[in-house]
Amino acid sequence: MKPNKISEAVVRRLPIYLRYLTHLQQMHVHTVSSQQIGKTLDINPAQIRKDLNAFGDFGKKGIGYDVGYLIEKIKQILKINQEIRVALVGVGHLGHAICNHNAYKRDNMRIVAAFDNDPKKQGETVAGLTIQPLDEMNQTIAEKQIRLAIITVPATAAQHVADLLIEAGIEGILNFAPVTIRTTQDVTIHHTDVTSSLQSLAFYLN
Amino acid sequence: MKPNKISEAVVRRLPIYLRYLTHLQQMHVHTVSSQQIGKTLDINPAQIRKDLNAFGDFGKKGIGYDVGYLIEKIKQILKINQEIRVALVGVGHLGHAICNHNAYKRDNMRIVAAFDNDPKKQGETVAGLTIQPLDEMNQTIAEKQIRLAIITVPATAAQHVADLLIEAGIEGILNFAPVTIRTTQDVTIHHTDVTSSLQSLAFYLN
Repeated sequence: MKPNKISEAVVRRLPIYLRYLTHLQQMHVHTVSSQQIGKTLDINPAQIRKDLNAFGDFGKKGIGYDVGYLIEKIKQILKINQEIRVALVGVGHLGHAICNHNAYKRDNMRIVAAFDNDPKKQGETVAGLTIQPLDEMNQTIAEKQIRLAIITVPATAAQHVADLLIEAGIEGILNFAPVTIRTTQDVTIHHTDVTSSLQSLAFYLN
Repeated sequence: MKPNKISEAVVRRLPIYLRYLTHLQQMHVHTVSSQQIGKTLDINPAQIRKDLNAFGDFGKKGIGYDVGYLIEKIKQILKINQEIRVALVGVGHLGHAICNHNAYKRDNMRIVAAFDNDPKKQGETVAGLTIQPLDEMNQTIAEKQIRLAIITVPATAAQHVADLLIEAGIEGILNFAPVTIRTTQDVTIHHTDVTSSLQSLAFYLN
């Protein structure tokens, strides 16, 4: 099925399934039902079956899903069965936290370059990476075959940084700056904004 | 309309509309069409009209929305037309970043307490807040009338911390730990996980 036929909500649930399935695998659990996944993740089992059925017939009726097989399939669907290199721009507290977190993960998404426009930070290291100036972005992204980028700069700088990244050939951006990034190019941009997340949480207050 | 009749996707878009409308207000723009909002935010204008119509008839046909009026209405819907106090647990790099960010914002969501189980951090200050031990959580949350919490602890500690927060009377949790938090209580939990966000972004790679 083509990516554009799948809703973003489904695409955002797949990593959640993957995380739980990986946990099960570590616990040496070999088979799991949509009921069990649903109970743990607080998602309707019918929704889970529908999400997965959009990509193929992975389960066995009355038995459930083979954990290892489903992990491989979801990794294929998400295209993370290959190494994907990531750049991070803006090494403040948040950028720091993300680099450190990434350094000890054992998956295929890897931050391999960090940039900051502050000369005082350039040359310092974060999670084993030397912080580089923004004018090295083009060359580094090409040389290291970096495909995704994380933006953790202030709101006022985010659009400019995104433009530079897209010009350098980045295919997708995860933006933490509290501003909507626009592009005419064929680049996927996801926004993660703490303020917006808190505001949507407030909706559910009694 | 009752909160449970509104999809989470809609609730997550409202803060995005609010951010853009606030930007327009700062630019002294008084009226805006769903077309203009849609173009800027890269959302279908029909979707925007549908989202807002679920709560009331805020626009004028052929004219559009009054910016100031719509801001007030969305704040009412999100319940952020009142001050909402927030606690943060886990003052690592990420917790630090969020506290600092929150300190200079001019809105009604305010982090008023920060907790960490590391005795070396307790007593230090972050963004003007004194970091407190976890066993002061119950009393502080009651005294300061804190209603929401942000969890920025490691995955292994997240469920325990959530249980403590819920016991202390917290009504909603924004969880940054890469683990699904479960609860039997009537508490809304939103998950924000950098790894999952990156993985769902990879889906859109060519």
